[in-house]
Amino acid sequence: MIPFNKPFLTGKETDYIKQAVESGKISGDGIFTKKCHQFFEKRYGFQKCLLTTSCTHALEMAAILLNIQPGDEVIMPSYTFVSTANAFVLRGANIVFCDSRYDHPGMNEDSIEDIITERTKAIVPVHYAGVACDMDKILAIAQKYDLFIVEDAAQAIESYYCDKNGKKRPLGSIGHMAAFSFHETKNIISGEGGMLVINDPQFNERAEIIREKGTNRSKFFRGEVDKYSWVDIGSSFLPSEIIAAFLYAQLECIDQIQKRRNEIWTTYWEALKEVEQSQMISRPFIPAYATNNAHMFYIVCQSGQLRDFLISKLKALQVLPVFHYLSLHKSEFYSKKNIQQELLYSDAYSDRLLRLPFFYELKIEDIRFICATISKSVNEYALITQNN
Amino acid sequence: MIPFNKPFLTGKETDYIKQAVESGKISGDGIFTKKCHQFFEKRYGFQKCLLTTSCTHALEMAAILLNIQPGDEVIMPSYTFVSTANAFVLRGANIVFCDSRYDHPGMNEDSIEDIITERTKAIVPVHYAGVACDMDKILAIAQKYDLFIVEDAAQAIESYYCDKNGKKRPLGSIGHMAAFSFHETKNIISGEGGMLVINDPQFNERAEIIREKGTNRSKFFRGEVDKYSWVDIGSSFLPSEIIAAFLYAQLECIDQIQKRRNEIWTTYWEALKEVEQSQMISRPFIPAYATNNAHMFYIVCQSGQLRDFLISKLKALQVLPVFHYLSLHKSEFYSKKNIQQELLYSDAYSDRLLRLPFFYELKIEDIRFICATISKSVNEYALITQNN
Repeated sequence: MIPFNKPFLTGKETDYIKQAVESGKISGDGIFTKKCHQFFEKRYGFQKCLLTTSCTHALEMAAILLNIQPGDEVIMPSYTFVSTANAFVLRGANIVFCDSRYDHPGMNEDSIEDIITERTKAIVPVHYAGVACDMDKILAIAQKYDLFIVEDAAQAIESYYCDKNGKKRPLGSIGHMAAFSFHETKNIISGEGGMLVINDPQFNERAEIIREKGTNRSKFFRGEVDKYSWVDIGSSFLPSEIIAAFLYAQLECIDQIQKRRNEIWTTYWEALKEVEQSQMISRPFIPAYATNNAHMFYIVCQSGQLRDFLISKLKALQVLPVFHYLSLHKSEFYSKKNIQQELLYSDAYSDRLLRLPFFYELKIEDIRFICATISKSVNEYALITQNN
Repeated sequence: MIPFNKPFLTGKETDYIKQAVESGKISGDGIFTKKCHQFFEKRYGFQKCLLTTSCTHALEMAAILLNIQPGDEVIMPSYTFVSTANAFVLRGANIVFCDSRYDHPGMNEDSIEDIITERTKAIVPVHYAGVACDMDKILAIAQKYDLFIVEDAAQAIESYYCDKNGKKRPLGSIGHMAAFSFHETKNIISGEGGMLVINDPQFNERAEIIREKGTNRSKFFRGEVDKYSWVDIGSSFLPSEIIAAFLYAQLECIDQIQKRRNEIWTTYWEALKEVEQSQMISRPFIPAYATNNAHMFYIVCQSGQLRDFLISKLKALQVLPVFHYLSLHKSEFYSKKNIQQELLYSDAYSDRLLRLPFFYELKIEDIRFICATISKSVNEYALITQNN
């Protein structure tokens, strides 16, 4: 069987967990959390990093920090994970969805300006598959209308945006804030886990408070106040040191992990080149301004029927691909409260995108087998549909 | 040095974490999460258990499940951890605080009825130090006014309430819902972590949805729907299997852990008997209807000055006691938005309660040393104050 995902262990995770336990501190913000923060701040130049219990929670922190109030509008793609939206809905926001690009599942940057109103407070670009949105465009719009940008960088670790001046900017370093995920399906994992990145220092102090249950406990530990107490709303967003220790073992091997994932991605890319010429499936498009962090490999099928056909063929051979997001604007929760909308490309990706197995230990011969199965099945499907 | 707390390892934690990783699933709701749920449901007869990323998050889930709306009032003690309040404040609730009992830091059950209004929606009894509130009284009030009860059982694992019919009921099984903590300072730990217990099955289905980011993913995994999608508000409340594996190793040793903690508690109790006769400090009071889960040992000093004196004396000998909650009604956050209130006993416990070091590996001779230091220091303090 070839599963869709298999968490990869670098080998040091349990050693570091033991170290954390032996240090006498396994609640949040111990030695390993600090090491992770330092790693990210140093490697990517993020102004301030705060590990969180999930990427969902990093987004919730961002919503609280932006002081989102009932009726505020937040713009994001419909083709995204539910948490991108729910984090803001929990604060009372109205979500305004924009369509995906025709060439990529990411949001269509050119459609953002049309849906801005006086109530718009923030834009949440999602770097789908770790591929950058066109941030120069989004930055210009945000500046023009005085909006905040929260990057949903859940899938975007170790990926870059090349701006109009030719500068390579790490994803997560561009918006006012950014949220990362270390869920087991990501490049770097801790089971469940996430991180809030703050690039605008005006949010630093309150972020610490909100993450510490609305108390000034971080100040207390730094000796800046003599008691800590309730000063704001907040939640418990600190992950255990057990999680941070696990994550740090992964971060130490990020180059090794990325090297391997790039090999996997390139193998898929090459092996599916020929079948793409049939125009029945297409491989991922990566704009010139974006790098590829090899987070996932997907194909876009010509139709939903073809996708279903491929899924059944692959599953019959014990290969487990997965489709992805259902457009959020068509969800039960959203559609019953909002005006019906047509977002053609978002729906197209919902119906037709297929994610292929992708994990560190995936064998090259297995990738070839998957791609050969896809090629064969596409031809088979063409024959069946021609005959009908 | 004698620290205040030291996390205890049963020895199997890292083995189980390895097993979780090898199972290919370290995100939430895997094998170990299920084992933990089953453990609690079987041992305590809880109707439904859901591990969460923290006790704070279990309380937040409860607030969402109760459909708390802006302006709803929630009654709880002022002498509690900030999350008891903030979980409901995040949903817009107004918190109405009641005082502690004269004989115990828990809420004064007889003062609850006076503060009920038409907007009251729930009562949140906090079983301080794992010692039960008088639940028969609280149940009668809740029934009379049609209110929900959410037990804050953060400290209350393996503790019981003996009701008027002589039935021993596990704490956490009495209210509509209950929240437990596995923070590293608790009897059973996972670094950060918690659990929501649902005793009223009307909340079961929505609880699963809210915990899974507002999606019906649990139904999808059970094959009850063919796709999962956005159906409600929600967050990511599932802990990683890494955390659940750690927790399960602890749960397997709960009897051993409780036996040891009871020895520690009893040693403190005996060793401080004599100095209590000075009436300058008092030992914990445990009502007849409550059991003792040996979660903590505290003393209540005759004055805040005496507490400060004891802290300084103990710290000079490298012993680290801690004081506890600042009354929430006096916090910066609450007091600037609400009418000033006098809650005498809550303030008294804030000023005068002292928690002594308490952890599995604390040596009996260290306890004797701590108690001897307290006795000596109390006498010394008496002499100083008499002379003034």
